[in-house]
Amino acid sequence: MTSRAPLPLADQCCAPIAREPLGEAGAVELAAILKAIADPTRLRLLSLIARDQAGEMCVCDLTDVVELSQPTVSHHLKVLVDAGILTREKRGVNAYYGLVPGALDSLATVLTAGR
Amino acid sequence: MTSRAPLPLADQCCAPIAREPLGEAGAVELAAILKAIADPTRLRLLSLIARDQAGEMCVCDLTDVVELSQPTVSHHLKVLVDAGILTREKRGVNAYYGLVPGALDSLATVLTAGR
Repeated sequence: MTSRAPLPLADQCCAPIAREPLGEAGAVELAAILKAIADPTRLRLLSLIARDQAGEMCVCDLTDVVELSQPTVSHHLKVLVDAGILTREKRGVNAYYGLVPGALDSLATVLTAGR
Repeated sequence: MTSRAPLPLADQCCAPIAREPLGEAGAVELAAILKAIADPTRLRLLSLIARDQAGEMCVCDLTDVVELSQPTVSHHLKVLVDAGILTREKRGVNAYYGLVPGALDSLATVLTAGR
């Protein structure tokens, strides 16, 4: 019976950030996504959309809860859409926002070992 | 035999951000942690420390890789220590930095369903 030496730590885990040194370009890209969500209002909007039963909300549903004007809420939602975290679908006069499936999970996988 | 209705989506998942609306205070706290890591240099430093075999590195090991001065690297490391992501231990003339166990995992759990 042979015993195997444990794998080096970097091979055991699967989080990209711990598997290989993050290069400059990768770090800039990841920082941009993190910056998009690193804002209290955007986190609250994400939280409201993430827990919505229908999986999507319009600006009109969100302004009252965060107590901000429609243009301000729309600006924050645009930042999240541009970062690839939210989808936006125009139907009639309203735009509906939903979580991009797996967007936050992918971010978590990059950051953590994902075990 | 009774059949049970499926749980509402918000009760099925366990990520705090999707379980209940993130309040103002919680959002400010989470945004501060995300802001600390939402920087290309700090992400690269985290990546280097996360994959280190010994689990800790001193500033002297990091300056060459990121090609920045010691005071600049020390400043970035201090931001990560203050955010509770890195530990700092002074031994002799050097300070050694390691990942706080589970710090990034906790962050990932808050953001994602964690299923």
